[in-house]
Amino acid sequence: MSVSSYPSKLLENAVEKFAKLPGIGQKTALRLVLHLLKQDTDEVIRFGNTLRQLKEEIKYCSCCHNLSDQEICSICSDESRDHETVCVVETIRDVMSIEQTLQYHGVYHVLGGVISPMDGVGPGDLTVDALEEKIRKGQIKEVILALSTTMEGDITNFFIYKKIKDLGIVVSTLARGVAMGDELEYADQLTLGRSIVHRMPFEQTFQSNI
Amino acid sequence: MSVSSYPSKLLENAVEKFAKLPGIGQKTALRLVLHLLKQDTDEVIRFGNTLRQLKEEIKYCSCCHNLSDQEICSICSDESRDHETVCVVETIRDVMSIEQTLQYHGVYHVLGGVISPMDGVGPGDLTVDALEEKIRKGQIKEVILALSTTMEGDITNFFIYKKIKDLGIVVSTLARGVAMGDELEYADQLTLGRSIVHRMPFEQTFQSNI
Repeated sequence: MSVSSYPSKLLENAVEKFAKLPGIGQKTALRLVLHLLKQDTDEVIRFGNTLRQLKEEIKYCSCCHNLSDQEICSICSDESRDHETVCVVETIRDVMSIEQTLQYHGVYHVLGGVISPMDGVGPGDLTVDALEEKIRKGQIKEVILALSTTMEGDITNFFIYKKIKDLGIVVSTLARGVAMGDELEYADQLTLGRSIVHRMPFEQTFQSNI
Repeated sequence: MSVSSYPSKLLENAVEKFAKLPGIGQKTALRLVLHLLKQDTDEVIRFGNTLRQLKEEIKYCSCCHNLSDQEICSICSDESRDHETVCVVETIRDVMSIEQTLQYHGVYHVLGGVISPMDGVGPGDLTVDALEEKIRKGQIKEVILALSTTMEGDITNFFIYKKIKDLGIVVSTLARGVAMGDELEYADQLTLGRSIVHRMPFEQTFQSNI
């Protein structure tokens, strides 16, 4: 949509901001902005403030790198959870997906992605070292590798496995109930929950490939 | 997505705000919020401020009811435009669509919708009286009815026509190049531009229905 057709600079600015979001084009952005214009002023101002607050006040848990309102997230600071089991995931979306299954009572470690040379993501961009350090402290007994079953996820799984296999812990991975090539985020809750319950030693994934 | 799975109240708030926008569900909202979290703090704060500004500072042109930064919009205050011809449209999106065709040099009158009993929109909710008043002042020679060619649009066309037909002006409507049942907003520019150039007296639409 050409710039000159906007009747108002303020409108144009707002549309531009929305159109920068992933998956939102100019027409959708305009629709969203016009929708907001019809809402209560208070409501829209709260929307604006929420965005600022989100960015200024949200923290990353210093223990598991999950998003959090506090220095330590609600999962890591929950004494009733099993702190001897750590589930390694790519993003906080995966934490949310696994939490929803209600099948897992351990803690998490958010990697921040998977190794992907195509996207310029190397092992150094992930929180693998922090995980290793955490294991060396001795409290952890089992690490569950719960990355997406894509090629990048498998490479990252193997990279982490090589790093931690000699630290005296059990390294398991999700039961391969999750369809190959699927993004974890979109798996249905039943499959995902079952794959947490039926997790298996990482070594067995080699055998199943023969 | 259940509430308890969000690791942060701030995150949840932001996701909720986005999920209230039309066509955006919980998963998309979460994706947008996580995208924003990866952006520069300044950028996100500007986004928030833009929303507040949008709502607090934007005005409706007191002449044509278009959105505007000033009391009178840039189209109404443009002396080079033909102020004797008024194009009646539903929303400011339609103003933008017609402006983009570059075929129209008159001014606009934004109704704010069409008569739609199903949606609880009656003639009183539209700016028809303001249009009539504007015509009675005597400067206007032609009114072009450019509403969507839906049933509601046709009813509104006819309602306005009955109100203004005896005021000594030409009442025309868009050439029926626009496919029946289409929303004006999605018409291609060529069709829309041609339908502005080939507008025809409103009376002829009765004949074509025989």
